[in-house]
Amino acid sequence: MEFSSKLIEKAVDEMSQLPGIGKRTALRLVLHLLKQPKEQTGFLSQALLNMREDIKFCENCHNISDTKVCEICANTARNHQTICVVEDIRDVMAIENTGQYRGIYHVLGGKISPIEGVGPSQLNISTLVEKVKSGKVIEIIFALSSTMEGDTTNFYIYKQIADSEIIISTIARGISVGDELEYADEITLGRSILHRVPFEKTFKNN
Amino acid sequence: MEFSSKLIEKAVDEMSQLPGIGKRTALRLVLHLLKQPKEQTGFLSQALLNMREDIKFCENCHNISDTKVCEICANTARNHQTICVVEDIRDVMAIENTGQYRGIYHVLGGKISPIEGVGPSQLNISTLVEKVKSGKVIEIIFALSSTMEGDTTNFYIYKQIADSEIIISTIARGISVGDELEYADEITLGRSILHRVPFEKTFKNN
Ligand SMILES: [Zn+2]
Ligand SMILES: [Zn+2]
Repeated sequence: MEFSSKLIEKAVDEMSQLPGIGKRTALRLVLHLLKQPKEQTGFLSQALLNMREDIKFCENCHNISDTKVCEICANTARNHQTICVVEDIRDVMAIENTGQYRGIYHVLGGKISPIEGVGPSQLNISTLVEKVKSGKVIEIIFALSSTMEGDTTNFYIYKQIADSEIIISTIARGISVGDELEYADEITLGRSILHRVPFEKTFKNN
Repeated sequence: MEFSSKLIEKAVDEMSQLPGIGKRTALRLVLHLLKQPKEQTGFLSQALLNMREDIKFCENCHNISDTKVCEICANTARNHQTICVVEDIRDVMAIENTGQYRGIYHVLGGKISPIEGVGPSQLNISTLVEKVKSGKVIEIIFALSSTMEGDTTNFYIYKQIADSEIIISTIARGISVGDELEYADEITLGRSILHRVPFEKTFKNN
């Protein structure tokens, strides 16, 4: 693509760094901003900058939060002895939306993926293992997507906590294998939380 | 959607103002930025702000340009007596890419669209009519998309310049009716410029 303006070219270049946004789409978005009042571009840029600069992660569960401890962890009415292990904030939002879960979460921040260069040390795994070893946890529920990366991550964590006295379960596989958790419908997702099964079953029976 | 962070919510809200970007996609993009170094968000925001603040439009053809007169208009080797009328910068880029056109352009900045509230006064139409009346133009080529809005815009301009002595043509309809110009392949688009037909033919024969 040849642009008649370096300013447009730079904006398109930066926009097309985002996943799923090609140069053509980026140009369409940038031209849209040009047709809108300048304030809209200002608001967008400022919102992204503020978010990136000031974002906090809950000290307890690593969920994105504007406070040191997130609302879910700060809620004493919730069951702090049951921990649901998820990949990111979108999964927390999806499960909260079902209204079926009253425990707390542990947000890993991703899945182990050798292809994308994500190893266990880049994820919030050690703090989860510490929680389990502290003896205050009764149950861990794995709620990662049932992809190879998700299964690898589940198993990596499982090996480190398998000798503790806690219940280790996974959400029921009502969700099709290979589907991303966040796109599941509420009912299926809610049911898969209620019908969670002992983790051992998921690989011993195969 | 309920967010655990106002910062995320604001960023998603602003991002989803962009056309074709829903809340879910916006959240995916925002979470991507969170995983990247802070600089990437800085570069993106700054590129958008610079573009929106400092963008210029060519004094002659209204194309986006970093200089007062765009490179095409400043090129004396091009034929300044033939003017190709297009909707926006993407159409200029698409036609330039064919290598078939040596005239100059006139960028309207949109199409007349009562549904979207775009009237003739919001487009660069009067400066085009002035150019024609100046007597320095030999040919006007309409190269808007062949949609109802495109046809309406062509016809609105045509009525104001029909009594002048110039040739008024449209690009050949090798491009399927209803297709957007920018998605046409180079060969079809190049041919449609070479095989342009007198504008009257396009409505008198129907
Ligand atoms: Zn928390
Ligand atoms: Zn120009």
